[in-house]
Amino acid sequence: MIASFHPPVRTLMGPGPSDVNPRILEALSRPTIGHLDPAFIGMMDELKRLLQYAFRTENALTIPVSAPGSAGMETVFTNLIEPGEKVIVCQNGVFGGRMKENVERCGATPIMVEDEWGAPVDPGKAEQALNTHPDAIAIAFVHAETSTGVRSDAETLCGLARRADCLSIVDAVTSLGGIQLEVDTWGIDAIYSGTQKCLSCIPGLSPVSFSEKAVQKIRRRKSKVQSWFLDASLVMGYWGGETKRAYHHTAPVNSLYALHEALVILQEEGLENAWQRHAQNHAALVAGIEAMGLGFLVDKPWRLPQLNAVEFPDSLNDADVRSNLLNHYNLEIGAGLGVLAGKVWRIGLMGFSSNRVNVNQCLLALGTVLSTMGYNCDPSAATTAANAVYSSQ
Amino acid sequence: MIASFHPPVRTLMGPGPSDVNPRILEALSRPTIGHLDPAFIGMMDELKRLLQYAFRTENALTIPVSAPGSAGMETVFTNLIEPGEKVIVCQNGVFGGRMKENVERCGATPIMVEDEWGAPVDPGKAEQALNTHPDAIAIAFVHAETSTGVRSDAETLCGLARRADCLSIVDAVTSLGGIQLEVDTWGIDAIYSGTQKCLSCIPGLSPVSFSEKAVQKIRRRKSKVQSWFLDASLVMGYWGGETKRAYHHTAPVNSLYALHEALVILQEEGLENAWQRHAQNHAALVAGIEAMGLGFLVDKPWRLPQLNAVEFPDSLNDADVRSNLLNHYNLEIGAGLGVLAGKVWRIGLMGFSSNRVNVNQCLLALGTVLSTMGYNCDPSAATTAANAVYSSQ
Repeated sequence: MIASFHPPVRTLMGPGPSDVNPRILEALSRPTIGHLDPAFIGMMDELKRLLQYAFRTENALTIPVSAPGSAGMETVFTNLIEPGEKVIVCQNGVFGGRMKENVERCGATPIMVEDEWGAPVDPGKAEQALNTHPDAIAIAFVHAETSTGVRSDAETLCGLARRADCLSIVDAVTSLGGIQLEVDTWGIDAIYSGTQKCLSCIPGLSPVSFSEKAVQKIRRRKSKVQSWFLDASLVMGYWGGETKRAYHHTAPVNSLYALHEALVILQEEGLENAWQRHAQNHAALVAGIEAMGLGFLVDKPWRLPQLNAVEFPDSLNDADVRSNLLNHYNLEIGAGLGVLAGKVWRIGLMGFSSNRVNVNQCLLALGTVLSTMGYNCDPSAATTAANAVYSSQ
Repeated sequence: MIASFHPPVRTLMGPGPSDVNPRILEALSRPTIGHLDPAFIGMMDELKRLLQYAFRTENALTIPVSAPGSAGMETVFTNLIEPGEKVIVCQNGVFGGRMKENVERCGATPIMVEDEWGAPVDPGKAEQALNTHPDAIAIAFVHAETSTGVRSDAETLCGLARRADCLSIVDAVTSLGGIQLEVDTWGIDAIYSGTQKCLSCIPGLSPVSFSEKAVQKIRRRKSKVQSWFLDASLVMGYWGGETKRAYHHTAPVNSLYALHEALVILQEEGLENAWQRHAQNHAALVAGIEAMGLGFLVDKPWRLPQLNAVEFPDSLNDADVRSNLLNHYNLEIGAGLGVLAGKVWRIGLMGFSSNRVNVNQCLLALGTVLSTMGYNCDPSAATTAANAVYSSQ
């Protein structure tokens, strides 16, 4: 017989999921009701408004997809793109590569604009690609690359897209709620995110939003969307503004309670305050990491406050450090992905995880583990440096 | 400002979601850990074994898809079917129609075998279709049609498929855990289910299982699976048996805790005991419904114990009855779907909802509401008839 599973209690400072606020876990466990219950429909309407607040948009088609961020990505590509079309994909990490896969699986052609892993997308190269391929229907890029901790200049890139009369597709899985993101002001046409990063909700849902221009592109489709489950026109029959909702699929009722609560918390704090909090905890972490003599993969102006790619000397065994932190401190930090495996740690300060206690705990634990492994550093100097940042602000 | 959402407490006796056992809601709200945490990987291994138990299979590729039942359906079709292929689809309700959509969106051709809504799939017609279309690569049907409450003879239909050297695809969204289902003994090649029906877990996950023959078909694909998110080969890199798991997408961690607990509960009760419980509560409900002078859409041998399509006189206003039950008794029963809208109610007795208290509550509430609406029936006679069934067994 298999027994009930009781997870260990961790502090989640990896690339997501982040620590979930107990208020959200409590909301998650409220009694399940029907997905067509009038009380539930009312909650869905609030959820759309809360997502519009978080995305800073008036887009009517702003909903959570009933599956994780990768399904949100697929929702955007599979609805917008038809076979034979051309899409410019900017890649500077793992998730640009996944966009390329999506474009190909839609039967379309990706035009790749490559940048170094750890560097932002170069707007000059993007502009050149738009000029060379005036027939591209969209340009896609990752706002906050979870694999490298780099921010790209979404405002500039979307401006280029608009001038080229091209749709902009933005991966905001790690940016939503953590750094400035302005869907309407920047003119983003299609965007997707995840719930388990800076919203600090449980993993499993993907907020998406489509501009009116993107919706028009979907309406003009000649072919059916290849996914029935992710077909936005059908999904909107359930989430749409009409009084009578049509059943499409059974919504993940309890996960939606949790997302509702996560967004209520965000609204209580205020979006700009949340960005400010992420920036402050990042500054403190940076001070502590630098006091330990470690450096960052990403140049200062492009660093994501919510995801810190920390470089370490070859002499340190990456896996040993991380399993030490997990086993002795219940602290999860992330490994490098792809070409950065074994070269960086990814320290997340996302959402509820982004707080002073976690910054201190992480610096102390990491410093202690590194010291015992022969790396010369002073954990208490690191926390002193971090706390000086809080005192100065 | 939008406030936290507190759902009403309902009794869920519609077509799903069903009432969720409080043990499962509590498991759901346990602290989130990372999707690559060794403790989580251990839980995933147990989850696969528990699903094999529920499906009665040794299939290695037995996992929960990170999205609702419709995505499970799409996982099966999109992985097994390539463009240009031919699939026989048996339709006797809404969900056979959704299978047809799936086949078409894979670029394949559905050969339809139609039966009345409320009747089971006719094996004679299925056999004829297999003979007429020896090039069909699969035959697909719904084991338990949620739109009509009818069971089809999965064992016979899978036997026909095997003899025709054709794959069998089975929709078990509403059957898993509620009636006999034998994946290995019946030779089912691909099957998908939902969590919010007879497993009484929260909605949002879809258990699937593929036979070795189905896996071989996937391995021989000439084209890539059109969905990256649902690509079984990639998903298996994360769920697979290898020691080193590769990140694919972020698993819905807390929902998987809940499914684990739901299956632990099923295992504690015993699968056959669960089937027996569903049968007994169904018998009691039938006695009560008949005592009220109402009848059933489906002929007795093909009725699903977990989903009862009850016919009502034209004189009754369907929507009024259901909103009366919801508003005054917090009781949800289901409306008819598609051609059965306004013609039947769908009364679910699924999983944790399938119990004597619910049978009594439903009969009493329904009888009282019908009486106040001018339909001549005696609620207490209905509950007496139902309780006689329990006493006699």
